Amino acid sequence: MEKNANPANRLTVQAAQAHILEKTFPLGTESVTLPSSLGRVLAEDIRANRDLPPYDVSAMDGFAVYAADLAEAPQSLLVIEDIKAGDTPKMALQSGQCARIMTGASMPAGADAVVRVEDTREQGDGRIEFLVSAKPSTDVRYRGENMRTGEVVLTPGEAVTPGVVGVLATVKQAQVTVYRKPRVAILSNGDELESLEESFDPRKIPDANSYALMAQVQSLGIEPTLLGIARDKPDELARFLKRGLACDVLLISGGTSVGVHDHVRPTLKALGVDMHFWRVEMRPGHPVAFGTKGQTLVFCLPGNPVSSMVCFEQLALPALRRLMGHRHLFRRTIPARLAQAVKTKPGRTEFIRATLARDASGIYTATPAASQSSGDIRSVARADALIVAPATSGSLSAGTTVTAQLLDAALFQDAPDMG
Amino acid sequence: MEKNANPANRLTVQAAQAHILEKTFPLGTESVTLPSSLGRVLAEDIRANRDLPPYDVSAMDGFAVYAADLAEAPQSLLVIEDIKAGDTPKMALQSGQCARIMTGASMPAGADAVVRVEDTREQGDGRIEFLVSAKPSTDVRYRGENMRTGEVVLTPGEAVTPGVVGVLATVKQAQVTVYRKPRVAILSNGDELESLEESFDPRKIPDANSYALMAQVQSLGIEPTLLGIARDKPDELARFLKRGLACDVLLISGGTSVGVHDHVRPTLKALGVDMHFWRVEMRPGHPVAFGTKGQTLVFCLPGNPVSSMVCFEQLALPALRRLMGHRHLFRRTIPARLAQAVKTKPGRTEFIRATLARDASGIYTATPAASQSSGDIRSVARADALIVAPATSGSLSAGTTVTAQLLDAALFQDAPDMG
Repeated sequence: MEKNANPANRLTVQAAQAHILEKTFPLGTESVTLPSSLGRVLAEDIRANRDLPPYDVSAMDGFAVYAADLAEAPQSLLVIEDIKAGDTPKMALQSGQCARIMTGASMPAGADAVVRVEDTREQGDGRIEFLVSAKPSTDVRYRGENMRTGEVVLTPGEAVTPGVVGVLATVKQAQVTVYRKPRVAILSNGDELESLEESFDPRKIPDANSYALMAQVQSLGIEPTLLGIARDKPDELARFLKRGLACDVLLISGGTSVGVHDHVRPTLKALGVDMHFWRVEMRPGHPVAFGTKGQTLVFCLPGNPVSSMVCFEQLALPALRRLMGHRHLFRRTIPARLAQAVKTKPGRTEFIRATLARDASGIYTATPAASQSSGDIRSVARADALIVAPATSGSLSAGTTVTAQLLDAALFQDAPDMG
Repeated sequence: MEKNANPANRLTVQAAQAHILEKTFPLGTESVTLPSSLGRVLAEDIRANRDLPPYDVSAMDGFAVYAADLAEAPQSLLVIEDIKAGDTPKMALQSGQCARIMTGASMPAGADAVVRVEDTREQGDGRIEFLVSAKPSTDVRYRGENMRTGEVVLTPGEAVTPGVVGVLATVKQAQVTVYRKPRVAILSNGDELESLEESFDPRKIPDANSYALMAQVQSLGIEPTLLGIARDKPDELARFLKRGLACDVLLISGGTSVGVHDHVRPTLKALGVDMHFWRVEMRPGHPVAFGTKGQTLVFCLPGNPVSSMVCFEQLALPALRRLMGHRHLFRRTIPARLAQAVKTKPGRTEFIRATLARDASGIYTATPAASQSSGDIRSVARADALIVAPATSGSLSAGTTVTAQLLDAALFQDAPDMG
């Protein structure tokens, strides 16, 4: 049933997101190599295959000692061995003895503490002068302190970040089971469109949507299939849509409003797609539809590139991330002060292209793009955030604290902030 | 000259970053296809190849009218044509006439405004009743309003985001000149290390660093070369280092402190590498060195996986981004309140693994990981931010506002925030 076949049924962005995610489940799993695992999501428990450290080790470069020998300082001890990482110590310490030891090297029997090299002096006679006293356990890392054999160290649903790759390598997981990536198809619509490959016609409109959506999908780590441009002929459109429906997700832009020439919705219905809604109370992007056929998700996005990109961000992106098994589905948001007033009409959530700036105390200011024209694709290229103007708020005055969604362009900044 | 051959010369993190970036310049350029351009940085001016819109178009689905006809409402006008996107209008409007028009379709001669379909009613006799009056220019987008032929729409140094891909497609740039990616080699060091391929030896330490660094490099869009593990034999080490020095960047972990068994620094010097510093006042990661040979950058990172990852983040990451042509070199930082007190020693900038949480008003709290042990690689896997504790601050009490660097794991959140 369509949630708002009756236009009086107003669907908020949150309700639309919830509705889409109700129909969206992580895909099946596959095994990938460790070098191919970054950005994927674990679908299995990962266990430690050894204790770490595998034996008691020194945490510092210095000397392994029996602390009771150094209850008072200064004191001299005889060096009986030189132990580096990977060595098996050959001798046990007796009272009055010490061993030179490197970070990560195995503690010799009889030693219970490490004194750092900075706190010692070579006497030149095979003995070391210790300038400080020692307490048992100082600068020793004990066997199994960081990981115990058989312990679960990672669980299904964890996203593979560089730190997770580090853990996987630590337990020697050369292959790992992850959720598979969705197959995503992208289709543009409209007689007016000129593809990247077609020759120049001054009266045509370039097909920006296929490529902007491609890049949005790529930035989630998924390589989509571009189906091309369907012209306004029902047969051709049906052929394209059938190909797209064989994927996990079909993103269609253009031709999806309720105008008399828009064939997309009737053709989708004829192909057995259940349309769940066709409007969301958002701006840009009011005419945006969502349907399903079996497990395939279908998003009908506006033909306008800016609107299409904003709708993708709010509605398709969380679904794609859930299909990949992610738990964190939504763009990171931060609070920011509006640098200038923004005119909005109440009734729809507005997404306002903006640029962020950080003041000396680390507080963010968001400046709305001069042009909020939904025809101005350059304003998306310049933006690093989308300000969320709630449907209830009406216009916002300068200085108001707003929510800013961080786009890809916001992930790095021009200067370090060391506190 | 080494900046701190004398250990009394203390090098702050900022000074070390500045020193590295003084030696770091964007690499040469190459041409890539549009589908391969995401995440790269433009190295050429990009110009519009047509006016956009290419002619005056309707911004809405509705009716093109001569506004003077609708100075007062309600009023009826005769529909003389049906214009969809891509059509060339055949007739000029006369007084008393209107044309049905779709979003993006060409305005007919004689029309100067659009009335939205919602504000009209079909009379059923070929005439449309307009419920509202019209003003000239309403819902018309004029030729060239968004882009003019020949205008520079993107400039060198702009990072290719999905929005930029949209602009590139709009001007039909199927190939684009970008800075090339650095060739990055990664080398681990140490007799104690066991590679991912080697059979299990309970007394060995798994080589996590090669893979954790690999993933950190991959997350910048670069596929590094893993050289493997150099054992503590000078000849073998020299052979590995020579291979690494043929790349743009060589990342070495382990074997780089000043212990008697550490051959890396002398071997690098013997191979003609200028070592610029070998210590930075940071924790974790005190023994970290930077050198250059010609244009090749060499980073000697600590052998400990946590320290190695943190040093990469602070020192190598900005350099890799500059090599790629980026202007924004540093991780995004946000202010966050400390959920609990943190013990730090003054004198070094500390990077504290933490997790972020958002309260109802969007303010962030950062909770330091329970274990700050630099042996605990799992604490990196769990962290989504690094708290920066300034060298001057000493311990920080709960509630202090600190700077948090957002790691990859922080880019998405578990719930939407619609303001």
